[in-house]
Amino acid sequence: MSASRWQVRATRPVAYDILTVADVFDPADPALLAGGRTHGGRRFVVVDANVARHCGARIGTYFAQRDVDARIVVVAGGEQHKSVDMFLELVRELDAFPIHRRDEPIIAIGGGVLTDLVGFVASSYRRGVPHLKVPTTLMGYVDAAVGIKTGINAHGRKNRLGSFEPPLRVLLDRSLLATLPRRHLRNGVCEIVKLAVIKDLELLRLLERHGAHSTAARFQDPAGSVLLDRAIGAMLEELEPNLFEDNLERRVDFGHTFSYGLETRHGERLLHGEAVLLDILVSLAIAAARGLLDDGEVGRVHALVQALDLAPDTALLDGALMWQSLLDRTEHRNGLQRVPMPRGLGGCVFLNDITRRELDAAIAITRDRTGAHEPALQCG
Amino acid sequence: MSASRWQVRATRPVAYDILTVADVFDPADPALLAGGRTHGGRRFVVVDANVARHCGARIGTYFAQRDVDARIVVVAGGEQHKSVDMFLELVRELDAFPIHRRDEPIIAIGGGVLTDLVGFVASSYRRGVPHLKVPTTLMGYVDAAVGIKTGINAHGRKNRLGSFEPPLRVLLDRSLLATLPRRHLRNGVCEIVKLAVIKDLELLRLLERHGAHSTAARFQDPAGSVLLDRAIGAMLEELEPNLFEDNLERRVDFGHTFSYGLETRHGERLLHGEAVLLDILVSLAIAAARGLLDDGEVGRVHALVQALDLAPDTALLDGALMWQSLLDRTEHRNGLQRVPMPRGLGGCVFLNDITRRELDAAIAITRDRTGAHEPALQCG
Repeated sequence: MSASRWQVRATRPVAYDILTVADVFDPADPALLAGGRTHGGRRFVVVDANVARHCGARIGTYFAQRDVDARIVVVAGGEQHKSVDMFLELVRELDAFPIHRRDEPIIAIGGGVLTDLVGFVASSYRRGVPHLKVPTTLMGYVDAAVGIKTGINAHGRKNRLGSFEPPLRVLLDRSLLATLPRRHLRNGVCEIVKLAVIKDLELLRLLERHGAHSTAARFQDPAGSVLLDRAIGAMLEELEPNLFEDNLERRVDFGHTFSYGLETRHGERLLHGEAVLLDILVSLAIAAARGLLDDGEVGRVHALVQALDLAPDTALLDGALMWQSLLDRTEHRNGLQRVPMPRGLGGCVFLNDITRRELDAAIAITRDRTGAHEPALQCG
Repeated sequence: MSASRWQVRATRPVAYDILTVADVFDPADPALLAGGRTHGGRRFVVVDANVARHCGARIGTYFAQRDVDARIVVVAGGEQHKSVDMFLELVRELDAFPIHRRDEPIIAIGGGVLTDLVGFVASSYRRGVPHLKVPTTLMGYVDAAVGIKTGINAHGRKNRLGSFEPPLRVLLDRSLLATLPRRHLRNGVCEIVKLAVIKDLELLRLLERHGAHSTAARFQDPAGSVLLDRAIGAMLEELEPNLFEDNLERRVDFGHTFSYGLETRHGERLLHGEAVLLDILVSLAIAAARGLLDDGEVGRVHALVQALDLAPDTALLDGALMWQSLLDRTEHRNGLQRVPMPRGLGGCVFLNDITRRELDAAIAITRDRTGAHEPALQCG
């Protein structure tokens, strides 16, 4: 018998807009109802508990004034809620509140944890329903909400389950950052520092000039707006041509190699951005030892970190843990390390031959530089 | 402040081949290792328990002879295993057997239940790893494995969670059908009948001419090959231009409106294709009452069903249940019924105004025609 062969070929377009809005919960602005009727109908809305505390009443009023039958589900923040259990709970809530499959988008209002979680629910429910993201943390604003990655943790591993799911739209309302705790602001600033060092010297200059003031002003100042726009633009320049990570060499993975293990181990002590910053500092030392950066450049980043009061907890650096993390990331990057490293500030090269010895030396240098010492008693 | 807007635009290409192979477990044929090294490396292989009974030794030999470190996980068949628990169990197994993210595809060997389940695992694990499907039932061969839909049941609802995940490749080995129980063969034949009625008059003629003999021969005869190729070609003509169901009017949904509820309720008594056939027969009666089919055409399909010995259990028809199923499918189809109906055999029209009265009348006619009577005692 002769063999038969069918070739299936298609393309799936991706198209979504990210836009700034002055006051997303103003009932006069229909932006939150994009993708369907702007009066009437139903919406399934998932809101971070902190946001609900600050804006719950306004959110309720928004939908009421537009006659939208809204089911508002409040989810506690924190990495531990990015779980299989919470995922299934949201699926159960959706079953109890039937929405149309195409024109009643799920609305996710919260930080990166929440938008990652809700994005995965949206991508999986009935094989995908649209969703719209409103980031309410700086981390969400400049990082998590901008791209298409969704995910939940499973079996003790971060983002073990997830998808690439383009949102219908992303709404950026800077005023939501005005109530953020300082620590969460700094958490997001770490991702901006990452982009500046690996990609955008002008962003680095903006951070040096305005970063401390804008952070103090919770980005409500004009320079804050410029900084955020620049960071988002830089992020999208990297993401857009490689949305589905066909290319595993990603600049935006800078700071995301050794941090993975630190964050998994010290989840209660380290926010994502804090772990990323630790990774960045050690990476700078590796880059310097290889001659990819000179002392002045390394010093410049350290000075910025200090000016921004990011206060990295370098006592948590741990060679064994971070080496294991590199091995895990190597698996994730299909067998090669592919670690992005700055070559000159704003430049990037990918390394595949980092050694354990090199990592340990870089950790020691970083500890010395930041004045931290190895803890006498190893914890964890 | 002026508003900022970023437009993210991209396309994701879909490309996969479906090919017939004479003996997929012949170590001389590297097809099963497509997408990576054909000697050495690792593969995570999920095999249906029935297939493992018949072919387990050969599958083991295949990988051993090619020096592939294979983790073979056997999963019991049956709709009840298309569950969240089994999904999480496979994720746990994957964690314990690290595979590369890009060039060590997961291999799914089984019926539609198994390939749906494994496809969803593959699409979710680390935001997607490639997978390859080897259907081992007729239902898988002509239907489930051909397209890109994955899914698991959740909270008592079929395919409540899932994704559109193109496989890396689909390998069709007709010889695997040779050990199928008769009932499972007929189960798949129902989907071929569906395509014939709603889409392909020539396929209907082939079924009339060779269907009974080919089914008896478990499709190992030359006509069986022609029939299967024709069915797959017809299926792909419908799927390829609408892989992601952007258009919710789908001919291949014929027989999949009222069957959904029947199958959910009577899961232990009805296989998927058996429920689809019940839906088809009732749909024929609706179409006839509307003048979309004449008596001769309806009679022709009933004669075929009899010749193929498909023996629909029309005592299970239930107006309330099937009406509820239509309402649920209407939700799934974004608020319109969009029920495909034959307009002449091989033609298709979509209805949005089916009434409960119309459905009940069609059920009564179908019962009369097949000689079934409403059960004296209502079960379930």
